[in-house]
Amino acid sequence: MKKVPPISQRAGNMQASPLRKLASAAEDRKKKGVKVYHLNIGQPDLPTHPDFLKAVRAYKPDTVAYAPSNGLESTLDAWSIYFKRNNIDFKSEDIVVTTGGSEAIIFAMQAVCDPNDEVLVFEPFYTNYNGFASLATVKLKPVTLSIDNGFHLPSDAEIKSKITKRTKAILICNPSNPTGTIFTKQELTRLVKIAKQYNLFVLSDEVYREFSFESKHYSIMNFPEIRNQAIVLDSASKRFNICGARIGVIASKNKDVIAASLKMGMARLSVASIEQQAMLPMLKNPKKYTAPLVKEFAKRRDVVYEGLKKIKGITFSKPEGAFYIVIGLPVKDADIFAEWMIKKFQDKNETVLLAPAAGFYASKGMGKQEVRLAFMLKEKDLKRSLELIGLALEQYKG
Amino acid sequence: MKKVPPISQRAGNMQASPLRKLASAAEDRKKKGVKVYHLNIGQPDLPTHPDFLKAVRAYKPDTVAYAPSNGLESTLDAWSIYFKRNNIDFKSEDIVVTTGGSEAIIFAMQAVCDPNDEVLVFEPFYTNYNGFASLATVKLKPVTLSIDNGFHLPSDAEIKSKITKRTKAILICNPSNPTGTIFTKQELTRLVKIAKQYNLFVLSDEVYREFSFESKHYSIMNFPEIRNQAIVLDSASKRFNICGARIGVIASKNKDVIAASLKMGMARLSVASIEQQAMLPMLKNPKKYTAPLVKEFAKRRDVVYEGLKKIKGITFSKPEGAFYIVIGLPVKDADIFAEWMIKKFQDKNETVLLAPAAGFYASKGMGKQEVRLAFMLKEKDLKRSLELIGLALEQYKG
Repeated sequence: MKKVPPISQRAGNMQASPLRKLASAAEDRKKKGVKVYHLNIGQPDLPTHPDFLKAVRAYKPDTVAYAPSNGLESTLDAWSIYFKRNNIDFKSEDIVVTTGGSEAIIFAMQAVCDPNDEVLVFEPFYTNYNGFASLATVKLKPVTLSIDNGFHLPSDAEIKSKITKRTKAILICNPSNPTGTIFTKQELTRLVKIAKQYNLFVLSDEVYREFSFESKHYSIMNFPEIRNQAIVLDSASKRFNICGARIGVIASKNKDVIAASLKMGMARLSVASIEQQAMLPMLKNPKKYTAPLVKEFAKRRDVVYEGLKKIKGITFSKPEGAFYIVIGLPVKDADIFAEWMIKKFQDKNETVLLAPAAGFYASKGMGKQEVRLAFMLKEKDLKRSLELIGLALEQYKG
Repeated sequence: MKKVPPISQRAGNMQASPLRKLASAAEDRKKKGVKVYHLNIGQPDLPTHPDFLKAVRAYKPDTVAYAPSNGLESTLDAWSIYFKRNNIDFKSEDIVVTTGGSEAIIFAMQAVCDPNDEVLVFEPFYTNYNGFASLATVKLKPVTLSIDNGFHLPSDAEIKSKITKRTKAILICNPSNPTGTIFTKQELTRLVKIAKQYNLFVLSDEVYREFSFESKHYSIMNFPEIRNQAIVLDSASKRFNICGARIGVIASKNKDVIAASLKMGMARLSVASIEQQAMLPMLKNPKKYTAPLVKEFAKRRDVVYEGLKKIKGITFSKPEGAFYIVIGLPVKDADIFAEWMIKKFQDKNETVLLAPAAGFYASKGMGKQEVRLAFMLKEKDLKRSLELIGLALEQYKG
């Protein structure tokens, strides 16, 4: 056998995206002529607002040159305006533009953690946190939420029991992907108190800020007592429906965190210049662009809620925000059910691709009876998808 | 004093870009009406080819959606064509599109190294390797090159003496930023042999591939015996003059490395869709776009070479490739000289901003008498800049 060096353990240990596991089965099924409704992924189906594409076409400079490492001055100013419109006080100098929210998460983890340091997360959580943590060799310490109270916080004692000497931060996604839960003002107050008591950073992923249907969304920055240990991770992808533009930010009043983010930014030089410039109109007048999207997803949320009510034996709460929900199924193993549904089940030649929720947990064995649904289809298709899940559960003998 | 959690050591230890240290002094000087020639940075001054901007404007999809994590199929195919035109056999499945060459370097380091593993680098080296290594908590183990042989390789024994049990890879930049040196076929053969003997990966940063003026450039992929342990780090930025587009690739015949890169790619979702599509014409017909740039930089190289010959007391070799050179100055400390030059020196109200080379070394105290010059000015300005360096050296009493 030819000797070849092995790859690193951290790369080997990284999980492949659990959302894509059944994707090839879905492709096979489509080739057999079965229509597949994708409830598994967060790829928006709506067209991007033409103002963005107009701004792309209007790109002026002769040279597509590096932007400054913290972002174009005009883009930083526009983000500051955007935040102000959302009752969040960030000046340009508190912000570093990143390649999507993804890079903001990486910067934050690396800024606050050395290898083997720990970050508290509430599971189920956005599955890519796992990948970033593996690469940064940071340990995610899960606090398990329960579907029974709509994935709201457990007791302070439960949260504090997971904090160790190596804990550096609490990471929240609010409104939450994958659960759709929005933490109340009272819950955030509790988290802020714990973070102060244990001297932890709070990393607050607020990319779904506008998608809040049931209750007011509070930013971590609305709690002045934590402002020097709060880090906001944000992205234009979902709220402006420009996922492929890859523009996000890391923002904080903590000057050391922003200085560290800027050094990381300098190492990778810059973020794409064309998109930074093209999103100026959206940042300066956000409501014009977010309102129609929020309205559409509120309608879909209602459709999903009504559809779920008709399915027997499932567990769920009314989705409060974002455009996801985690529901409990009356099956032993949602992984096997989802596989059966995409490979075997059909009604009038149609079926649904689900995302089993186990991949959104860090604790082994958790979420085995749960799946995440994303609201990325038109109302009619969403309705039909939920009908199909109901029919599949009736037929399933797992 | 209010207690706030500290940032991580790895973030604290990251060096700020040494190229930007004197930038604010340059801005101050300009405000005083002094013209500053920037020989310090690699920001191309030439216009981007209009075909790229035309392709940006022709972006078709209604939704700016996530691209696949490994890259758009058409972009991967086009990179494969580009490589073939350059006598390098990479198929689409050997390639993952990255956000600039920067991300390719990060992916490669994390794919082959666990924390505290070591990578051999030849110093002076591209300064951002330091930043990526800090974040990945990888140790760069420098093999010092000498200005006296034009920064070509030292003896095998010297190289091997730096290899330890934790060494996982040899990282080269060929043609080299910052030295402009191109490793000969014989030198690469030596490195390949060492990598085989010690079972190391070779990470080959070839972003300046086309800029080879004195001798033929060989890719690491032109050495079939190493193909399963070679990783090519590449970028469209310099050769197509689209630095702000942020498109690069990591490419390898080693399937584990590419699988790991794809998992890292999935974690950060995707690379900007618009630029991936807009660079198709360039990748499919590269010579049309690279040839005029190479011709221009060859002319500038000659101007620099002729200009350097006229300066007394400096050490240099004829630049072989890329668009940089590291020269030795007859001063004790190039840092202090560069600072004096930007803050105090002027001739006819003009001066030059230099990049002291110490920042390109990992070994403390090395490169203290050297500076890097980038050829980012028109011929006339380059000529004048070199004249100014000569005049400054005559006046300087450091």
